[in-house]
Amino acid sequence: MDPERIIADLARPARRAASLLAASRGQQRNDALLACAEAIRDDIDRLQSENARDLARSEEFGLSEAMIDRLTLDEARIESTARALEQIAAQTDPVGQTIKASNRPNGLRVEKRRVPIGVVGIIFESRPNVTADAAGLCIKSGNACILRGGKEAINSNLAIGNSLRRGLDKAGLPPESVTVLESTDRELVGAMARAEGLIDLIIPRGGETLIRAVAQAATIPVIKHYAGNCHVYVHAKANLGTAERIVINAKCQRPGVCNAAETLLVDYAIARRFLGDLAPLLAEAGVELRGCEQARTFADMKPAVEADWSTEYLDLILAVKVVDGLDEALEHVNAYSSGHTEAIVTDEVQSADQFVAGVDSSSVMVNASTRFSDGGQYGLGAEIGISTDKLHARGPMGAEDLTTYKWIVTGQGHVRQ
Amino acid sequence: MDPERIIADLARPARRAASLLAASRGQQRNDALLACAEAIRDDIDRLQSENARDLARSEEFGLSEAMIDRLTLDEARIESTARALEQIAAQTDPVGQTIKASNRPNGLRVEKRRVPIGVVGIIFESRPNVTADAAGLCIKSGNACILRGGKEAINSNLAIGNSLRRGLDKAGLPPESVTVLESTDRELVGAMARAEGLIDLIIPRGGETLIRAVAQAATIPVIKHYAGNCHVYVHAKANLGTAERIVINAKCQRPGVCNAAETLLVDYAIARRFLGDLAPLLAEAGVELRGCEQARTFADMKPAVEADWSTEYLDLILAVKVVDGLDEALEHVNAYSSGHTEAIVTDEVQSADQFVAGVDSSSVMVNASTRFSDGGQYGLGAEIGISTDKLHARGPMGAEDLTTYKWIVTGQGHVRQ
Repeated sequence: MDPERIIADLARPARRAASLLAASRGQQRNDALLACAEAIRDDIDRLQSENARDLARSEEFGLSEAMIDRLTLDEARIESTARALEQIAAQTDPVGQTIKASNRPNGLRVEKRRVPIGVVGIIFESRPNVTADAAGLCIKSGNACILRGGKEAINSNLAIGNSLRRGLDKAGLPPESVTVLESTDRELVGAMARAEGLIDLIIPRGGETLIRAVAQAATIPVIKHYAGNCHVYVHAKANLGTAERIVINAKCQRPGVCNAAETLLVDYAIARRFLGDLAPLLAEAGVELRGCEQARTFADMKPAVEADWSTEYLDLILAVKVVDGLDEALEHVNAYSSGHTEAIVTDEVQSADQFVAGVDSSSVMVNASTRFSDGGQYGLGAEIGISTDKLHARGPMGAEDLTTYKWIVTGQGHVRQ
Repeated sequence: MDPERIIADLARPARRAASLLAASRGQQRNDALLACAEAIRDDIDRLQSENARDLARSEEFGLSEAMIDRLTLDEARIESTARALEQIAAQTDPVGQTIKASNRPNGLRVEKRRVPIGVVGIIFESRPNVTADAAGLCIKSGNACILRGGKEAINSNLAIGNSLRRGLDKAGLPPESVTVLESTDRELVGAMARAEGLIDLIIPRGGETLIRAVAQAATIPVIKHYAGNCHVYVHAKANLGTAERIVINAKCQRPGVCNAAETLLVDYAIARRFLGDLAPLLAEAGVELRGCEQARTFADMKPAVEADWSTEYLDLILAVKVVDGLDEALEHVNAYSSGHTEAIVTDEVQSADQFVAGVDSSSVMVNASTRFSDGGQYGLGAEIGISTDKLHARGPMGAEDLTTYKWIVTGQGHVRQ
């Protein structure tokens, strides 16, 4: 069957489900989330046996040890998947909120009210718990979703999808609210991205190649989640102890995630002292430094090449560049950053303000580690991802970002003069 | 020169201008808007002579009388173009507003602050005053813009662009904040829509063919402004006098605009009486009715064909369908509407609520004419258009909708545990 047809046949029932979800009460959607959590716990044996089928093929797909680890659904991970759904149920309901409202001089009441988007398509790779998290946030916000995971996790994803559909059904909401694609055929991704009138939004999460391919193919809106090439800039007026702690935390606390730092920029005025102190500490933590020519005169490090400035290592590697003050730092960041998160360490308020205003990224940290760039840390609850786009949602995206709004205008027979 | 290159050569200076605009103060952008208004008044002779060159070619382009009228820059229209810029200057500044802010339990301060988007590409047809309006809203919201108007108005558009650049320069802001494309080559539209990293957003305004072509070609975000196939639904419990006034106003007050009504839905229970009274009044107003079979048994009208339900007439024509209650009305609206504006006339609050919840359009009117769907009427000030999309902005879009936000996180040396 052709890909357009397969997607249309799944998206039509999803749209009907979306209409029912949009008309449902928040309490009912929360009950469904709790029922989904319960179903996941009940289905632990089936989830693990389906997961075992995926794991058995991991060699065939050439998965690394880290990837196999992320794919594995052990008991603790299944429990935390269920608990995540309960936490989403406990969050504030974004649907129906009044964003703004006014009485116009002619007596018309104009209200901007939050409503679900409709059908959200989510394209992701590997980790099967994304299936439950993403579907949970969509249910919370009154959206139906169509999920396309990676081939390495297809059996686990389908099993989780089944549990969620049972939970929805038990709570009286349509099981078609959550659809996991049975095929991981690449052509279905393109068909999803062109499903105008059937899918309202595509969120691709994964490698840059995948995201770029989706954005190229898409005729419907896409919110891109590119990698995090995050910078820490240590300004001449920084407290160097604070700067040290922040750089080490931003690089080492969890190097494999998108909000870890990848490049350190240091003002020339303090570079000798700062890098002299910092380099041994980072070496001790197992971090490989790759520096510009100037940086290498201050501490022992490998030479950085042009590609280092735009690489998201996701590993214990840090590029280091000495800059001639704030303007050069801003220029470097805006040239090489992926628009995710940047930090400045400084005690000078004007420089902090200038950095905040000048950096074109979704999050700017002042005297804090880039690792705080996260929906949970920002108080958004669970997050669907971290948008590196500027339209609709930027930075950590929670349930609220899965809504749009409607203008509701109430008159008493008003006509326009 | 190839289209990608032409756009890149214009977009790079526009990006630099956008950085300066983003860092500028609201007062300076307002001063620039006033200087632009002044420049337009000063340049009236040049504007009219350039406009005359366009008008001289109107026959060659086969423009209708209505199109020629919209193209003409008479003295009154030039004055109102200047005044529109002054009104934009007087609006509230959306840039720098705190959308939300909180202190997290660990003492981090998290703020979501409104910032300009960057470079906005606007693709439009005919009316040259759109050049000034769109550029004015971009300046207000701190964005640079690249404008591509229709070939019928190219000389007028370039002349207005020159006046605006003089105004910007006079106020100390970069003239490259506003760029009007000198060529109306279709390939430049595609190049704009693929200018990733150079243009942040494309807003196409015009015919459906143009908008669809832009959406198909685009790899950057597009906010679509499709036509308005607006419905008025007269519910069984409507006050029929009110319903009559609203239908006549929605259809006749200004039939050539997107928020005029194109289809009337009437509940069967009241259809005989309502249509019996209404049809002669509409006939008197010069409106041609095209009815479903049932409607034609109640009043004299032409038979409607399938295409009538999805047509935006922009003319004194109204399609009429008798429905069997609210559910059928909702089904019809959601199947044929372009998602712009729908109205219900009813005295029954439950039915109003059900219609508001069930209609998937940007604006829903209760006992008010569809003609109120408009940024000015909603209190947004001047509008850049009426989005029929659901992402980022829906319905009337003002200066605020030309902004995104940035997360600003302030700590005192915070690191993540």
